[in-house]
Amino acid sequence: MNITRLETALIEVNEIGAVKGQGITRLAYSREHWAANAYFIQKCEEAGMSVSIDACGNVIARREGSDPQLPAVACGSHLDTVQHGGGYDGTLGVIAGLEMIRSLNDRGVVTRYPIELISFACEESARFGVSTIGSKAMAGKLNPDSLAHLLDNEGISFPQALAAVGLDFAQIADARRKNNALKAFFELHIEQGPLLEKRGVEIGIVTGIAAPVRLEVTIQGQASHSGTTPMNMRKDALIGAAEIITALEKAALEQTEHDTVATAGVCEVLPGAMNVVPDWVSLKIDIRGTDATSRQMIIEQLYSLFHELEKKRGLQIAARILSEEKPVSLDKETIRLLSSECEAQGVTYTNMMSGAGHDAMNMASICKTGMIFIPSRNGISHHKDEYSSISQIAKGAALLEEVVLRCAEEIRNGSTGILNNMDRSIQDESGKKKSAI
Amino acid sequence: MNITRLETALIEVNEIGAVKGQGITRLAYSREHWAANAYFIQKCEEAGMSVSIDACGNVIARREGSDPQLPAVACGSHLDTVQHGGGYDGTLGVIAGLEMIRSLNDRGVVTRYPIELISFACEESARFGVSTIGSKAMAGKLNPDSLAHLLDNEGISFPQALAAVGLDFAQIADARRKNNALKAFFELHIEQGPLLEKRGVEIGIVTGIAAPVRLEVTIQGQASHSGTTPMNMRKDALIGAAEIITALEKAALEQTEHDTVATAGVCEVLPGAMNVVPDWVSLKIDIRGTDATSRQMIIEQLYSLFHELEKKRGLQIAARILSEEKPVSLDKETIRLLSSECEAQGVTYTNMMSGAGHDAMNMASICKTGMIFIPSRNGISHHKDEYSSISQIAKGAALLEEVVLRCAEEIRNGSTGILNNMDRSIQDESGKKKSAI
Repeated sequence: MNITRLETALIEVNEIGAVKGQGITRLAYSREHWAANAYFIQKCEEAGMSVSIDACGNVIARREGSDPQLPAVACGSHLDTVQHGGGYDGTLGVIAGLEMIRSLNDRGVVTRYPIELISFACEESARFGVSTIGSKAMAGKLNPDSLAHLLDNEGISFPQALAAVGLDFAQIADARRKNNALKAFFELHIEQGPLLEKRGVEIGIVTGIAAPVRLEVTIQGQASHSGTTPMNMRKDALIGAAEIITALEKAALEQTEHDTVATAGVCEVLPGAMNVVPDWVSLKIDIRGTDATSRQMIIEQLYSLFHELEKKRGLQIAARILSEEKPVSLDKETIRLLSSECEAQGVTYTNMMSGAGHDAMNMASICKTGMIFIPSRNGISHHKDEYSSISQIAKGAALLEEVVLRCAEEIRNGSTGILNNMDRSIQDESGKKKSAI
Repeated sequence: MNITRLETALIEVNEIGAVKGQGITRLAYSREHWAANAYFIQKCEEAGMSVSIDACGNVIARREGSDPQLPAVACGSHLDTVQHGGGYDGTLGVIAGLEMIRSLNDRGVVTRYPIELISFACEESARFGVSTIGSKAMAGKLNPDSLAHLLDNEGISFPQALAAVGLDFAQIADARRKNNALKAFFELHIEQGPLLEKRGVEIGIVTGIAAPVRLEVTIQGQASHSGTTPMNMRKDALIGAAEIITALEKAALEQTEHDTVATAGVCEVLPGAMNVVPDWVSLKIDIRGTDATSRQMIIEQLYSLFHELEKKRGLQIAARILSEEKPVSLDKETIRLLSSECEAQGVTYTNMMSGAGHDAMNMASICKTGMIFIPSRNGISHHKDEYSSISQIAKGAALLEEVVLRCAEEIRNGSTGILNNMDRSIQDESGKKKSAI
């Protein structure tokens, strides 16, 4: 691995969509996103890979193996960003994959299995409110009907955004990979949280990806004059909301052992005047964890509080589940491979869950999947201050290169291969083992 | 008193600015407000009064007394409304005064003291964010500099709004009344709160007008990913705000004996996304009471909580006093007159504070002032559903007529007059007794 070359590529791709002092903006399917893909395609082709773009806009670069009939060992991440984002979230995983290919070329390595490097489309929800669309499409988890009417902030629909980069929304389902197309998938990513930095650990091996339950809670009280309504005759929706917010934190703290977290991120208050007791509040709540039971316990505590507040404060509280995704557990054999490789390379590591969603969670339904975290300075992401040092990046990239190589089986050193029964059996979406064709 | 005639006038004036299903909108100095004033002026002139408009737009209608050199006994309220307001707040006090004059005419009553009926300008803060401008001007409490740059929602400045109705902002200070111009002032108004209705009492005699202290509290935390930040590593500004909101209620409930109330009416949260721990909240808080010490105790409890939250949650909390007005106590002799008159008329009454501000609070600094409340259905005001029944109105209007008449001293029955030393001494703004010139 040539860490200077990796750093140069990271700097070059991050010139695209950068505005001084305002971070990087490469919204999904935008001109900037596609310019970054064009950079990636050019570099992959220069590295001798064959490149295709699937029906959903995922860029797939392939380095052939000695046996082209075998399933590919894939890695990758995404080049789209949030508005005013940073240069590491997603981008690092793609560019580290590029360096891996260049490094294999330098060393003249031939692998038995093909290697694929993927730049996923529309990982961020920043443009259309839906995340990991590209990997959902690959995994056959996409419901095109649910995307047909999505609009971005400019009023451009999802199908129009696809058309602008030469894609046809009607064909989007074709992005689904064949059942035996992939042997394994690895994603290198920044942690986007503070744990690795706080604990002074170099690598996080992701054991599971938490999924959010999202609720909208609407609290209806009664507006009245803030000067003339005695305290004990009020139906103040904001005080009800405040009790919910503090109780949510308490309930989540009780689930610390399961790493479940809960956040009220949105709080809208009407009528929002200093001289009127608020009569309406909308809270939007995000509860995440890899343990569905722990997540559910928080929700049940909330519902019980809603009932109590209705009686105690004369409020009407309605809760609506906006989305409820299933947590994903990553493959244990892959976790063991990553652990033993960390030990071999002498880097410190810890097993951890990912609180954020990633393309890896969708890929896990079609092949054995591993995910590698490196530290994020101050846990910051989705922000221009997002940062991981080059030495932190080097450790993650070296680990990625080594595990991909071990799965893809280098020919000349006669490696017996790890996870070597993966080409013979593949987990289908329902989780059942299925013979590969 | 002719209650049918009063009701008819109320209906007629409330046709001005009414939009079906959307209440009544007569913003201060608007075309609608001025049309209502024109209606009022016409009816006063028809009733034989002389009418003038002062430099601030207050309409003053005068029924001469047998001794024109004596100070006037005044009553009135305001014809401007909030956006989509009701037909009683302010309007009732003006129209009841008109009926009183007509009734005195019908009965051929001659009074020793002149009677003035005032339609105050810009009582509502709805247009320019400042309330009771007309009565402040009369009482010499106005700082014209503070009004020069106020803009309404359409971008029209306060001086431009005055010019549109033929007034000159440069002359506004001329609206100040001469020290000995008024003997007393009475305002009949709807309660705008639930107490009279809940207690089944017909008349509220206002003993004091609460004044608000208003604070803006800004809570600065740290934004982080809602999925990847452990609960114990967060600096969540919204949870800090929630603790402040619940503590504010608790502190106000402890001041119930002083009728002090506290409200967080505005709560703005940034960045306001489901997947980001909020890093910034602005709360706007209104604390009101007639007891300044009680009000201050709530504020001190808040400041102590701010300190605790900064230490406990790593937040930075800044509080800024937006405004701090002094509570006004109304004249005890006038309160006794109103009480004895309620007893004479056989109506139930209670002494109470006014949580809302009124023109009476400014008039109290230049003459002995009394204020009469009648019940508001469900305590609702500033809304199209604002309502008081005709029989409730009749009781308030009869009381107003009687106390004005007793102060103005009907000639033919040789009344000795109540509050009869008022023309010899007047309270100046600092509250000191001062000889009239």
